[in-house]
Amino acid sequence: MTTPLRLGIAGLGTVGVGVVKILRQKANLLADRAGRPIVITAVSARSRDKDRGVVLSDYAWEDDPVALAKRDDIDVFVELMGGSEGAAKDAMEAALAAGKDVVTANKALLAIHGHALALAAEKADCVIRFEAAVAGGIPVVKALTEGLAGNEISRVMGVMNGSCNYILTRMQSAGLTYDQVFEEASQLGYLEADPNLDVGGVDAGHKLAILSSIAFGTKIDFAGVELEGIQRITIEDIHHAADMGYRIKLLGVAQRTGRGLEQRMSPCLVPADSPLGQLEGGTNMVVLEGDDVGQIVLRGAGAGEGPTASAVLSDIMDIARGTRLATFGKPAEALETARSAVSGTSAPYYLRLELLDKPGALAKIASALGEAGVSINRMRQYEHKAQTAPVLIVTHKTTPDALENAFVGFQNSSVLASAPVAIRIETV
Amino acid sequence: MTTPLRLGIAGLGTVGVGVVKILRQKANLLADRAGRPIVITAVSARSRDKDRGVVLSDYAWEDDPVALAKRDDIDVFVELMGGSEGAAKDAMEAALAAGKDVVTANKALLAIHGHALALAAEKADCVIRFEAAVAGGIPVVKALTEGLAGNEISRVMGVMNGSCNYILTRMQSAGLTYDQVFEEASQLGYLEADPNLDVGGVDAGHKLAILSSIAFGTKIDFAGVELEGIQRITIEDIHHAADMGYRIKLLGVAQRTGRGLEQRMSPCLVPADSPLGQLEGGTNMVVLEGDDVGQIVLRGAGAGEGPTASAVLSDIMDIARGTRLATFGKPAEALETARSAVSGTSAPYYLRLELLDKPGALAKIASALGEAGVSINRMRQYEHKAQTAPVLIVTHKTTPDALENAFVGFQNSSVLASAPVAIRIETV
Repeated sequence: MTTPLRLGIAGLGTVGVGVVKILRQKANLLADRAGRPIVITAVSARSRDKDRGVVLSDYAWEDDPVALAKRDDIDVFVELMGGSEGAAKDAMEAALAAGKDVVTANKALLAIHGHALALAAEKADCVIRFEAAVAGGIPVVKALTEGLAGNEISRVMGVMNGSCNYILTRMQSAGLTYDQVFEEASQLGYLEADPNLDVGGVDAGHKLAILSSIAFGTKIDFAGVELEGIQRITIEDIHHAADMGYRIKLLGVAQRTGRGLEQRMSPCLVPADSPLGQLEGGTNMVVLEGDDVGQIVLRGAGAGEGPTASAVLSDIMDIARGTRLATFGKPAEALETARSAVSGTSAPYYLRLELLDKPGALAKIASALGEAGVSINRMRQYEHKAQTAPVLIVTHKTTPDALENAFVGFQNSSVLASAPVAIRIETV
Repeated sequence: MTTPLRLGIAGLGTVGVGVVKILRQKANLLADRAGRPIVITAVSARSRDKDRGVVLSDYAWEDDPVALAKRDDIDVFVELMGGSEGAAKDAMEAALAAGKDVVTANKALLAIHGHALALAAEKADCVIRFEAAVAGGIPVVKALTEGLAGNEISRVMGVMNGSCNYILTRMQSAGLTYDQVFEEASQLGYLEADPNLDVGGVDAGHKLAILSSIAFGTKIDFAGVELEGIQRITIEDIHHAADMGYRIKLLGVAQRTGRGLEQRMSPCLVPADSPLGQLEGGTNMVVLEGDDVGQIVLRGAGAGEGPTASAVLSDIMDIARGTRLATFGKPAEALETARSAVSGTSAPYYLRLELLDKPGALAKIASALGEAGVSINRMRQYEHKAQTAPVLIVTHKTTPDALENAFVGFQNSSVLASAPVAIRIETV
């Protein structure tokens, strides 16, 4: 098999340029490992004239990615444009219709249209590969789809948005507020053009939905992901959580429950001394749990030119070596429709309450919790200088419903100066 | 592709039985994911009559694994017997000669005869897969061969023998001596029949040699692994290392140096707060470093029925799905002969010296170090009750040669009550 594998690359931003560089600089190494040369035939991007620091004149140029996708002289369409609609989607559909394999880093597109694309790929006897869509350089799609292929997966968990983890760890280490660090991260270029994709948890939610589909054999269901961003996390909560032995992370959790498939991407407390708790800065970590393998933890850079390009290359190399896998690990027709579990598995919670300085206030809080069936594991009241006293509570395992009832009790007792803060504690 | 994939399984110990159980219990899940049924045709083991807790009467029985390997009605020979010579080798060679793909967990066989077997496999257009040979359930062979296929690998590191890590962490947590914990581990069945395979570092060295071949594209060279076991590690060193912020691990390191391929499996100090330093008990961890991906850390169970069987299943599933890879990531003919670097990259060292209680003793030690060009980063002298005073030194980076010279100086100065202890400190 010495026929070259011919690529058409659409999108020459950071990742696209990274991929071109690797293919140019390591052509011999890649050919040795793949058993055949891998060549770029044509590229496409918005602006032809921009200097990208890499020679592109060896390749045909297409202004239109759809035209690129259909070219007779490419075998694989490498989609690195991004966006769940428009050009990326049109071009990927065109590529599959023309019988081309696809490699993409586009989590949004897969999260929204992944099932339809998987059906189209199978109809055309093509593959869609997307290692770069989840957790950057960490080969987690491969680990889950192939490495753990003999396992019933019980849970997938992870910190999969480096920008959010950067913000949360930076708030803690520098003692800065959310707004201050958000501003800093913007300046450093760490955030997407629409920062809600990062801090709102959307980007990480897309990634979780992809892993969830592979793990549980269900049609990808991003709409079923319960999403909450990190915007409400205060420096106070970060400090209090640390005092009690926890870190706050934007954590994704997907698991089967008695009530259906639970998919959550939300701020959670995790033990400070756990692998997830120790994750600093922009690093990603994914935890995979299988019935035979137990717990596998994978850690690495979740973004950036090199790591993301490395993941794209992994897919290209697989295709060059002849590896053909169903998009989400089994034929798309065989994927079940996920029954989405409304939030509700029980967990311990961290509560922060600002008590008005009235006699009996704490007793009223305690009894509201008791009446709702929420029991207290640990409590701390801090010395207060102002009119209100911060009280921190770690509950025993409780349901979100019970907690909701306790909050109604708090409301009725009129002893809180502000809305209570509740953050789930995840057992790692 | 709905033709069943037919397996012949040789070796029905813990792992073999684990594989049979998974294939029986999850037949539908596996068939869904593979796109075809996976069936066991025949099995082989030493004793036919032993009750293994799993039904074997559905399968043909062969007393001789070589006969099993050659059967016309199997596609894949699954070798789970172990041992670098004898039946396992004969059967694997027979399988390849008969055109069968091979899945094995046999690190010893690969470490010693891997190159010849890879050549035989390619000649027969067969594959040899061995995810279970390295780090149990962690899909590290896959991560390295496929997930990081676009990277120049700069270093591979890892704790890959759970029994040694159990002994070292147990010594620390329980304050027991090496001999006490060794005895305990024997009783618990944590050690190989020949315990030197574990505590002598041989087993972990086999694993390192396998990863090294894939990482650097070199013919497997177990003889080139500088091996040292954990037998000389004392509880004193463990405590002293902890005092200075380190943990002692049996650590494998493979890297290219200016002088050739360095492969070491030896006790090292690593920072207590690093991922490797925090690894407790029987868990394994592998660190892969590539030019594009940066550092990837993989962690999971390194042994046991479930995790090892999970890895075997990963290989079986790959073959069922049609994945065909060169044994060590590129054609065997293209692998270079490793030029083995004699030990010698510089590193900081931990030194423990038992000083005789004489005036000027410390000055003599310090000047011996200075004359050898070894500079001191940190030093501690402990209060002493006996005739000797323990002195701990962390050096700056130095070469083993310089250290050797310093030791000659120590010898000449006649101020040490016993031989000096030196343990390399690895930067993680």
